[in-house]
Amino acid sequence: MLEQVLIYSRFPKAQLVGIGEHYDLLDAAGKPPAEKFGAEQLKPIRAMITAGGQSIPNAVLDSLPSLGAIICYGTGYDGVDLAELKKRNIALGNSPGANAASVADLAMTLMLAATRRLLPASDYVRSGDWAGSKPSPAMRPPLGMTGRKIGIYGMGEIGRKIAARCASFETEVGYHSRSKHDVPYQYFPTLAALAEWCNVLMVAVRAGPDTQHIIGAEILQKLGAGGTIVNISRGSVIDQSALVSALESHAVAAAGLDVYEKEPHVPDVLTRLPNVVLTPHIGGHTIEGHRAMQDCVIANLDAFFAGQPLRYPVK
Amino acid sequence: MLEQVLIYSRFPKAQLVGIGEHYDLLDAAGKPPAEKFGAEQLKPIRAMITAGGQSIPNAVLDSLPSLGAIICYGTGYDGVDLAELKKRNIALGNSPGANAASVADLAMTLMLAATRRLLPASDYVRSGDWAGSKPSPAMRPPLGMTGRKIGIYGMGEIGRKIAARCASFETEVGYHSRSKHDVPYQYFPTLAALAEWCNVLMVAVRAGPDTQHIIGAEILQKLGAGGTIVNISRGSVIDQSALVSALESHAVAAAGLDVYEKEPHVPDVLTRLPNVVLTPHIGGHTIEGHRAMQDCVIANLDAFFAGQPLRYPVK
Repeated sequence: MLEQVLIYSRFPKAQLVGIGEHYDLLDAAGKPPAEKFGAEQLKPIRAMITAGGQSIPNAVLDSLPSLGAIICYGTGYDGVDLAELKKRNIALGNSPGANAASVADLAMTLMLAATRRLLPASDYVRSGDWAGSKPSPAMRPPLGMTGRKIGIYGMGEIGRKIAARCASFETEVGYHSRSKHDVPYQYFPTLAALAEWCNVLMVAVRAGPDTQHIIGAEILQKLGAGGTIVNISRGSVIDQSALVSALESHAVAAAGLDVYEKEPHVPDVLTRLPNVVLTPHIGGHTIEGHRAMQDCVIANLDAFFAGQPLRYPVK
Repeated sequence: MLEQVLIYSRFPKAQLVGIGEHYDLLDAAGKPPAEKFGAEQLKPIRAMITAGGQSIPNAVLDSLPSLGAIICYGTGYDGVDLAELKKRNIALGNSPGANAASVADLAMTLMLAATRRLLPASDYVRSGDWAGSKPSPAMRPPLGMTGRKIGIYGMGEIGRKIAARCASFETEVGYHSRSKHDVPYQYFPTLAALAEWCNVLMVAVRAGPDTQHIIGAEILQKLGAGGTIVNISRGSVIDQSALVSALESHAVAAAGLDVYEKEPHVPDVLTRLPNVVLTPHIGGHTIEGHRAMQDCVIANLDAFFAGQPLRYPVK
């Protein structure tokens, strides 16, 4: 008989098929588990899978008295209270780097689309305005990539992959992270110094209480009127209303965003802006990305139910 | 007094400002010069600037009896009849590689946007469908870049720059061109073999009579149902109606196009398709790209009027 595992977040069914071949899944689908399942059903549950970014109230943990492992589908675990888990002796696992290439690719897609004004260019063709030789202010030549200064905030697996891709575009790459890494890019000891230096700020930092709204009006001001910001990390890292104000007042030039403060809600003030490229949190959303994340989830669960340490524990 | 130079094609005014500081420009703006200017005005004209892709009928050359140099703004010169120019002893210059980085960057933008389905993703956010958790078939995870086979057709400056960028995305890169180059990518002796092998076909070949419609139903069939085609070269290289049929019947998956058979006309059958990303021939259209192309134009004209060989002659 397969071991039972609770699915805490709302996942598309297709993402659970592979895991469902190894485990008997109780799918709470984003609802509090106690609303979907009786206390007797939840009592024996020893492991659960979560999306990482979704917060887990203590009441949920209380409803799962046998819980020994929380496995995040993906890299992030910012919804999880590490101290609380430690207190309850619950192990935490994730999928480190499994989707890093997919996320870095999307960061590049957003940067290129924002700086080359892909959406206005597409509209210009599809509307017939190009065929009609109508002038379009959005079609003025933008600055290209050559020699641009790209600042990467965060130098984990995703940040490194973004850096390698950016370097091939004949740009200058700099970065900020808590510590200097052994990488061939210029290190900036503060985020402010990086923002001051760069033309494009790529946000690839791990989200958590220490990075909450770390990018606000002040950092955006330093990025400046020619600057573009790209976020594929978590919405919480950027003060979203400060970003909207900066985009509206042209304090920064453009943004490419895959993540938002309250997903899937994206405020109208943001979707109305012409100088932003918005995607629905699809950074890790590729066939290979999902396969790798599922492999990590299964490896973590297998280790846990075998009484071993998690294969990919959050340290 | 500044030397007079005829502007043959229709260029945005902003692109002529720099050249206009060095030469007295007679702007025919895409019209036959004899319609805009009297025979007496055209008679002494010794040099003209063209967009390269626009054809130059013999009647135009006949109207310019003193013409000694045609300078293409950009890399392409497919509108020019080389034999005719030789017969008339008219030198031909271009801007080799001046916009190569800009064009290669746009090729990457189109490839990433097409394969990651950026336009449907953007629509999904902006329409509110994501916020409403509406299912969307376009949001199924696509294949990412890792391990994809990218076939580059043409290994000139632009092809090389595309190859270098693609390699940083952890892809396999192969290419076809008339001859093998000293590059670290797999060589395919025929276009058909390259199309058979690759998942993404990047068209970066120089346009001309020998490449006219070289990509038709047969090559697209070999590229296959999972394949994506990107064209930043010239519209003439692809049989556009064969491409539309292949996209409509899902014989190929997607396309990213910056160039078309009859610019600026883009047929409705193409703009209607959801699986294409279309831009209005903006490959070289960046501030640096234009500056470099203008520098080449001025250097060519300076050499010509000094009685020297062109600085950047078409060989």
